[in-house]
Amino acid sequence: MTGTLYGVGLGPGDPDLMTLKAHRLIAGADVIAYPAPAGGDSFARSIAAGAIREDATEIIIPIPMAIERFPAQDIYDKAVADIRPHLDAGRNVVTLCEGDPFFYGSFMYLFARLADDYPTEIVPGVASMTACAAVAATPLCARNEVLTVIPGPLEEDELKARLSASGAAAIMKVGRYLPKLRTVIDDLGLTSRATYIERATLPNEKRMMLADAPEKAPYFSMILIAGSDPYASH
Amino acid sequence: MTGTLYGVGLGPGDPDLMTLKAHRLIAGADVIAYPAPAGGDSFARSIAAGAIREDATEIIIPIPMAIERFPAQDIYDKAVADIRPHLDAGRNVVTLCEGDPFFYGSFMYLFARLADDYPTEIVPGVASMTACAAVAATPLCARNEVLTVIPGPLEEDELKARLSASGAAAIMKVGRYLPKLRTVIDDLGLTSRATYIERATLPNEKRMMLADAPEKAPYFSMILIAGSDPYASH
Repeated sequence: MTGTLYGVGLGPGDPDLMTLKAHRLIAGADVIAYPAPAGGDSFARSIAAGAIREDATEIIIPIPMAIERFPAQDIYDKAVADIRPHLDAGRNVVTLCEGDPFFYGSFMYLFARLADDYPTEIVPGVASMTACAAVAATPLCARNEVLTVIPGPLEEDELKARLSASGAAAIMKVGRYLPKLRTVIDDLGLTSRATYIERATLPNEKRMMLADAPEKAPYFSMILIAGSDPYASH
Repeated sequence: MTGTLYGVGLGPGDPDLMTLKAHRLIAGADVIAYPAPAGGDSFARSIAAGAIREDATEIIIPIPMAIERFPAQDIYDKAVADIRPHLDAGRNVVTLCEGDPFFYGSFMYLFARLADDYPTEIVPGVASMTACAAVAATPLCARNEVLTVIPGPLEEDELKARLSASGAAAIMKVGRYLPKLRTVIDDLGLTSRATYIERATLPNEKRMMLADAPEKAPYFSMILIAGSDPYASH
């Protein structure tokens, strides 16, 4: 009898936006696993902290700062080596995932290595994207609008092509790409439709029109571009 | 002192995927509002049923079947007339929304009519899209992939243009458009990357490759097209 590997979405940051299922699984977990920047605090763990048992075994997946976006695959080989003995011994392992596990999440690297050998279950969570729309008080997409979800690190030409073809758009992972994104959005005449949001649903969240955004953006920031559907805004 | 209008995302269908916040707001609500097909049961209410107080006042927003996708705006004028007296009397009104309120949701029509006059709060929920990825056990998008979210009712030419330009894609509102979507996806050579999911997270959910999908799809069905990132699948 092997244990089950769970990938549990925690939502965007406010612990109150965890699902009932996520909360219950975490509160019952003997073993939890989560990413943390080398030498820093884990954002995922901080969301779930109130539900974690004091006697839970914690497996930390250390993410070196320099490669935070595309971690070297050997980090996950190491994490898998830490996780396998628990699953083999019949203990469930609950992996804490910011947002939703399968929406630009790193859980897929564990999943790819373990899903053939153990029962796995993905528990979806509130994605940062819809949380940002809630904070911005602006519908993300309406009726038959196409929504394009665009990672900020893309090259300028591709960003332009994607944004000019799209109605509504959400630009993820803004962070240090903010100056480039501002230029592209401005060149396309979309600045008046663009909202900037950082740390959505956390106590220090900010939302403003992109034109009023600060010069530096944290990693957890996003730009939403409203579609042209008149029913989508008030 | 007026009441607050809440738009509360309920997630994709499994009541266990409601957020802690949604559950608490519903359990405390004197007045709830929700859409229901004329003469039928409300899907939104069914998700929240276990949390609704017996003495809660329930405002039903009747959606005629024939125009379920784009309800006539007078339906919302009528709903607003039912809701205003409660807000004016200082009672909060909790509006139940399938999935996420601002991700192709109809709550925006109430929001557009009431947000200037009353305090409003949007509580994001788990979107059907990420729930489908969880059920399909396939990451929706990875690393720097673009994800295009496409409503199934679009014209064939636009569907083709959108799908051929995109990496990963999620096609919403499949329902009666399934035959057209199959043709387009097949013409583009994408069938082997396409997964069909219906009623995700409900007891009668189904997931299969699109090639094996039934001839008729219910309204709550979706097609996910995996991107080409090798790390996104196992």
